[in-house]
Amino acid sequence: MKKIWQKDQSKTDDLVNKFTVGKDLDFDDRLAKYDVIGSMAHCKMLAEVGLISYEESTAMLKVLDSILEDINAGNFEIDKSAEDIHSQVEAILIEKLGDTGKKIHTARSRNDQVLLDIKLYLQQEIREISALVDTLFQTLISLAEQHQKVLVPGYTHFQIAMPSSFGLWFGAYAESLLDDVELLLSVKNIINKNPLGSAAGYGSSFPIDRASTTSKLGFISMNHNSVYAQMTRGKSEKLLASALSVLAGTLSKFSYDVCLYLSQNFDFISFPKEFTTGSSIMPHKKNPDIFELVRARCNRIQSLPNELILLTNNLPSGYHRDMQLTKEILFPAIDSLKECLEILNYTLPNIQVKDGILEDEKYKYLFSVEKINEEVKAGASFRDAYVSVGNAIENQEFDYDIKDLQHSHQGSIGNLCLDEVAHQFHKIATKLQA
Amino acid sequence: MKKIWQKDQSKTDDLVNKFTVGKDLDFDDRLAKYDVIGSMAHCKMLAEVGLISYEESTAMLKVLDSILEDINAGNFEIDKSAEDIHSQVEAILIEKLGDTGKKIHTARSRNDQVLLDIKLYLQQEIREISALVDTLFQTLISLAEQHQKVLVPGYTHFQIAMPSSFGLWFGAYAESLLDDVELLLSVKNIINKNPLGSAAGYGSSFPIDRASTTSKLGFISMNHNSVYAQMTRGKSEKLLASALSVLAGTLSKFSYDVCLYLSQNFDFISFPKEFTTGSSIMPHKKNPDIFELVRARCNRIQSLPNELILLTNNLPSGYHRDMQLTKEILFPAIDSLKECLEILNYTLPNIQVKDGILEDEKYKYLFSVEKINEEVKAGASFRDAYVSVGNAIENQEFDYDIKDLQHSHQGSIGNLCLDEVAHQFHKIATKLQA
Amino acid sequence: MKKIWQKDQSKTDDLVNKFTVGKDLDFDDRLAKYDVIGSMAHCKMLAEVGLISYEESTAMLKVLDSILEDINAGNFEIDKSAEDIHSQVEAILIEKLGDTGKKIHTARSRNDQVLLDIKLYLQQEIREISALVDTLFQTLISLAEQHQKVLVPGYTHFQIAMPSSFGLWFGAYAESLLDDVELLLSVKNIINKNPLGSAAGYGSSFPIDRASTTSKLGFISMNHNSVYAQMTRGKSEKLLASALSVLAGTLSKFSYDVCLYLSQNFDFISFPKEFTTGSSIMPHKKNPDIFELVRARCNRIQSLPNELILLTNNLPSGYHRDMQLTKEILFPAIDSLKECLEILNYTLPNIQVKDGILEDEKYKYLFSVEKINEEVKAGASFRDAYVSVGNAIENQEFDYDIKDLQHSHQGSIGNLCLDEVAHQFHKIATKLQA
Amino acid sequence: MKKIWQKDQSKTDDLVNKFTVGKDLDFDDRLAKYDVIGSMAHCKMLAEVGLISYEESTAMLKVLDSILEDINAGNFEIDKSAEDIHSQVEAILIEKLGDTGKKIHTARSRNDQVLLDIKLYLQQEIREISALVDTLFQTLISLAEQHQKVLVPGYTHFQIAMPSSFGLWFGAYAESLLDDVELLLSVKNIINKNPLGSAAGYGSSFPIDRASTTSKLGFISMNHNSVYAQMTRGKSEKLLASALSVLAGTLSKFSYDVCLYLSQNFDFISFPKEFTTGSSIMPHKKNPDIFELVRARCNRIQSLPNELILLTNNLPSGYHRDMQLTKEILFPAIDSLKECLEILNYTLPNIQVKDGILEDEKYKYLFSVEKINEEVKAGASFRDAYVSVGNAIENQEFDYDIKDLQHSHQGSIGNLCLDEVAHQFHKIATKLQA
Repeated sequence: MKKIWQKDQSKTDDLVNKFTVGKDLDFDDRLAKYDVIGSMAHCKMLAEVGLISYEESTAMLKVLDSILEDINAGNFEIDKSAEDIHSQVEAILIEKLGDTGKKIHTARSRNDQVLLDIKLYLQQEIREISALVDTLFQTLISLAEQHQKVLVPGYTHFQIAMPSSFGLWFGAYAESLLDDVELLLSVKNIINKNPLGSAAGYGSSFPIDRASTTSKLGFISMNHNSVYAQMTRGKSEKLLASALSVLAGTLSKFSYDVCLYLSQNFDFISFPKEFTTGSSIMPHKKNPDIFELVRARCNRIQSLPNELILLTNNLPSGYHRDMQLTKEILFPAIDSLKECLEILNYTLPNIQVKDGILEDEKYKYLFSVEKINEEVKAGASFRDAYVSVGNAIENQEFDYDIKDLQHSHQGSIGNLCLDEVAHQFHKIATKLQA
Repeated sequence: MKKIWQKDQSKTDDLVNKFTVGKDLDFDDRLAKYDVIGSMAHCKMLAEVGLISYEESTAMLKVLDSILEDINAGNFEIDKSAEDIHSQVEAILIEKLGDTGKKIHTARSRNDQVLLDIKLYLQQEIREISALVDTLFQTLISLAEQHQKVLVPGYTHFQIAMPSSFGLWFGAYAESLLDDVELLLSVKNIINKNPLGSAAGYGSSFPIDRASTTSKLGFISMNHNSVYAQMTRGKSEKLLASALSVLAGTLSKFSYDVCLYLSQNFDFISFPKEFTTGSSIMPHKKNPDIFELVRARCNRIQSLPNELILLTNNLPSGYHRDMQLTKEILFPAIDSLKECLEILNYTLPNIQVKDGILEDEKYKYLFSVEKINEEVKAGASFRDAYVSVGNAIENQEFDYDIKDLQHSHQGSIGNLCLDEVAHQFHKIATKLQA
Repeated sequence: MKKIWQKDQSKTDDLVNKFTVGKDLDFDDRLAKYDVIGSMAHCKMLAEVGLISYEESTAMLKVLDSILEDINAGNFEIDKSAEDIHSQVEAILIEKLGDTGKKIHTARSRNDQVLLDIKLYLQQEIREISALVDTLFQTLISLAEQHQKVLVPGYTHFQIAMPSSFGLWFGAYAESLLDDVELLLSVKNIINKNPLGSAAGYGSSFPIDRASTTSKLGFISMNHNSVYAQMTRGKSEKLLASALSVLAGTLSKFSYDVCLYLSQNFDFISFPKEFTTGSSIMPHKKNPDIFELVRARCNRIQSLPNELILLTNNLPSGYHRDMQLTKEILFPAIDSLKECLEILNYTLPNIQVKDGILEDEKYKYLFSVEKINEEVKAGASFRDAYVSVGNAIENQEFDYDIKDLQHSHQGSIGNLCLDEVAHQFHKIATKLQA
Repeated sequence: MKKIWQKDQSKTDDLVNKFTVGKDLDFDDRLAKYDVIGSMAHCKMLAEVGLISYEESTAMLKVLDSILEDINAGNFEIDKSAEDIHSQVEAILIEKLGDTGKKIHTARSRNDQVLLDIKLYLQQEIREISALVDTLFQTLISLAEQHQKVLVPGYTHFQIAMPSSFGLWFGAYAESLLDDVELLLSVKNIINKNPLGSAAGYGSSFPIDRASTTSKLGFISMNHNSVYAQMTRGKSEKLLASALSVLAGTLSKFSYDVCLYLSQNFDFISFPKEFTTGSSIMPHKKNPDIFELVRARCNRIQSLPNELILLTNNLPSGYHRDMQLTKEILFPAIDSLKECLEILNYTLPNIQVKDGILEDEKYKYLFSVEKINEEVKAGASFRDAYVSVGNAIENQEFDYDIKDLQHSHQGSIGNLCLDEVAHQFHKIATKLQA
């Protein structure tokens, strides 16, 4: 297929073509839908401001509509010889409509087109990720409720510290997701601004109406300045990558806990056998590969913002072809994150927690602060009680009976504040999935 | 000074002491104020819930007040032999008040104390950074207005592309700051949640009232779950680092443009001689070191989130001493960013822009799209006009007179939308500086 | 296909299976050859030490040989239902040889198998990359010779500084490659150590002879300690990624120079039109996409070591499934780097350099140091001459005729030392490609 | 103090001065010695080629000698008003010798001076780091020998896997250091090349003899090409950072193991109480802060290469002031790494290992492979024996008596190959410390 920027029939160099197209065709299929939707809004606006006639607009919309139907039905393929999805849609319009089709690219450039496509696509992915996070959040809240009173050692410095509970543990990760979606919502809003009309990054002399396309495409606002609109290429991806990185940090940490707690040396939790894998040499192994791989994938995702910075940094203003690679960096990471959420949503409801863990002798010092608190409640100052209990421990005179722990303050074992956290989460999640 | 966790008088090992204290004393001075403010709120709450008497509370508040006065007057120094600021404040209270002082640490741990101190400190730094960004934003808006009509080449791929203007250029960076503060505000809100009362990360059996300290300390909300409150150590720093990294990305990119445009090969702008430096060997040099160093420092800042991830990643839940290093990673970077903003605020108003740049023959093809647009307005389809102008260029028949450019759409040379951008910025900046 | 670690016929969960296999099958095809070669050496050794009979060994080698032939002929495919290449080779042996085939996994684990496969594979890739770098080096040396005397401005701080030449410029990147291959050779040697026999990372009670497989497989030495052998998973990949990152840094920097020098504002070099691409909107554009994409890809590659550190860091000793992802991180990057080298090798010989660049008035101060040197040679002290020329410039009295520059010291315009650099490069390249 | 590049007495702007000097004066003191040594070699060479007289050379060498004595005696301070160490040394020469002193800067620039100083300084630091690593290596080897037969569980996926030993564990980290120093030696050699004479990165017309300074300063070779010599700024730092990062990776991993094994849930090792720290709230705590901080610092160090890449990437050839920051990035990291090695060397010899760990019931499946191997030795095929033992485990019929393990192959429990590893280490360490 001839390139849209070719003025004659000279063939482009095959190797150059292969190298410059790169992996674009692998990723453009997910942009196809948004490219067409963007073209539709653009087309309507062109008619509104008189750059094309309403007849021309109607004709083009009809073709675009049928392309969209094909895409939604899974019947659309990007031509292997096309340079990209943008060129192909224009080519179809020209093929079907002749001169009218040649008007679609009036007052835009592939630069603002791809900006637009990516922004629309990312909005959709944010919605889908949010729905998956929502499910995970509900599972964690429900597990926290279910196991609120089951005690487990709390550690600091990998040393046993104070009593904790499965309620606290599951609830902590639920609340972590709350902060993560708050950041994600903010990023969703920041990138939810219309770049269309910035053309090659410097606008143009056509009297287009960017407010019209902004409204038609459902954006909150627009990237006003054309030069800045162009700068959001790479920056939008980086912003989303940062938010996903923070979310991935939560999943990675949780998975690390799971792998550790599954170790025979902790033995706090277990999963049904079908969620573990074996060894080629050791017949007793039931390995937690799922959670190791969630951790590993999420650690990769945490490297995304840095990778995008390395790609885009120290490039002066104005488009550079380097930006092409943001797609192959970010898009597969989105897929991978969604798969991690899916597998967690699939397996986590099956987690089994052990009971009676703290009865093991090695955990008795977990209760040293309880003992201090008893002395304090009986009138001693905290620091004196600390020294007194400390001395008892040194002299091996410390002992403590596990009784029903009276932890009652907000965020303690006896008062998880799950409703409040769930309420706040719901408010944000609703906006994210809108 | 004896450690607060020492039960006897045995000396701690000097080398171990030096290694573990590390650079803490260099950074704790900026936390001192917030440690005292936090202790005041904690002290009042302890009396409210009856864990100490109001007399004890009043006595402690008096001492804390005088420490705060000393700090504000610059008369407070952290004892070189103290383990940290938290230990020292407790030591002063005990020294002045005896047994009463020994009650201050009731129902808290250094873990939630340092969490609190850092959060209060970061809120203050966010305010100061925001004020500096505000000034920079105003300068950029004002420069954009002042030079709205002065044309400059727009580049894509480092190749001359289409006409741009100093108005667009300055305005683009102003709008970039708008998105940056939107993210910063979101992070400010996420970390503006009270961790106090989570103790060592597992709460305690004391019937404290965390809502009371949340309100007294001006937090929006609290980190409810004690385990999650502890997880915000490292995460808060990472979130702020991410937001600062995005802001630094804007400053770095702007500085890159400045350095490039100061090159004799562009020669678009200049600065007074006193803002440049010379060479030890080349007497003609007037180097833009300021902007190179802003770029360089901001590029370091962009590496912060990754550095913090490397520090905190793959550590299971519960405090680890590794967290100590977040201070020496983040705090100097905050200083450095503020210095970058200060030097930009100091120098940028003195920038001089060149006039008549586009008259140079080498820029004539900037106007190829103008020519196309003229043909389109005269009835040609865009793609045909593109080919026609393209052929004219190939045949060296292209020519164009620079006339007053009629760019009128939102975000184009003739319509910078500065008021709208300034309006949105103001709304956010007000919240950030509150 | 049943997993080799399955003791019964229970089906593994499909979603778990899909998630844990991940992209392995995409990458295992390139390991197939090395898996078989490794199995051959292992098989021979087992017979040598008497763990299997020579008849069994011969039978297995025959099957392995035919698999290898299939692989080399492109007739081998990894079964979609296989867990990995290792399982499949064992399955074929069992299918063809029955009980004899069941002996191949004696005294090894998939852990040391994949370690081995990756090491053998990486050695081959290092050879291929080295050959491509060699070609690039030769091109750069030849361009440096060809354009030794063509002057070009030298910049510091993006400001014109002193005269340089295309000879210096091309030669600098050749010498950069010299240092890069020196590092690569070192990494090649460090990872060229046999891990086979470390089993699951703790060795075994079988009396195997690791020196024998070390020698059969052409390794320089072995990773002696079994626990350390296991630790080289992730570390080998990180080491190679570091060396490739340094090489990519050279290519990225060169590509940046090329993009800049192609700009109309420098206009130092050009390429034939078929090595440039056009714009969808600006008919005059001839964009250097190839070099932007080399830069971008090489910048991605520079993020590799950090990504691998994030993946593998803070995991205690012993294998973790996280390691699986090193393949999908490193292998595509190797492909991408090779493509960058290929496209540079294809296009760079066609570079055209401009003559007479320094005649432009804006470059005259390049010669200020020449003027100082003349005064110094005439008896002035350097610092006095510096001030004198500096004052002449300030007073706009500086002038200089470009004469034949007498730069004669090692590494200057007149004495590029290309032979010495080429000689050193050749010594290293020979070892790398061995 | 007037800047050496100032032609008149105009004051430089204070704020600009403060911002551009930055932290240079904090780091230049460690370069002072090397600046003087470099000036001495330069001075001698200038006389050799006739650019100054031997009398002038002798006079300057005398002054330089006395500066060097002051530096070595700790009596030298960089003037707070000096721009940098290079300016100050020139100023002293001029003050003492008048016109003769003004000749020292003939044929050089601060660019190649600082390149030289840094290279000489880094060589010295590499020697010191190597000596510290050597001590650590010897300790590890000695601990491995001492505890060769003490068994400990080996883990994969955090699950108990096969028997390991303290001998294997200590020995693994010793061997890890072997690979690390091999890389460090390679980097030492790559950066051990003379940049002096490249001036501002483009050489000069003075007939200097760079081979002479190369030999006088003890370099292996020179960075021939002046443009490339300049490129090594940032690249040398990055190369060393990469090597230190790999070494830090080993220390971090070892420290992680230590922290984990100190946990009550593993309880494999212990340290004397004075090497642990306490808690402000929990009187029973003995925390492994030292090892957490070694891990944390080493994780910071692992972020160095990425930080340096972000600083230096996408800058075209030729010096940029951004390079100044490599000092404040790399130098404190070197200090920190040395402190980590020192504290390890101080504490590690005191490690205590537990005996009889494997007697705990939970570790019995560690021996499943031993059981398989017995069946194999008795004639079964490996895969059949695997299934048979696997079934015994499923049916809870598995049992195993811990006998003296007969692991005899290279790198197994019974054959640690410590001599071979130590021999290889010694060869490299000797070159590193030379």
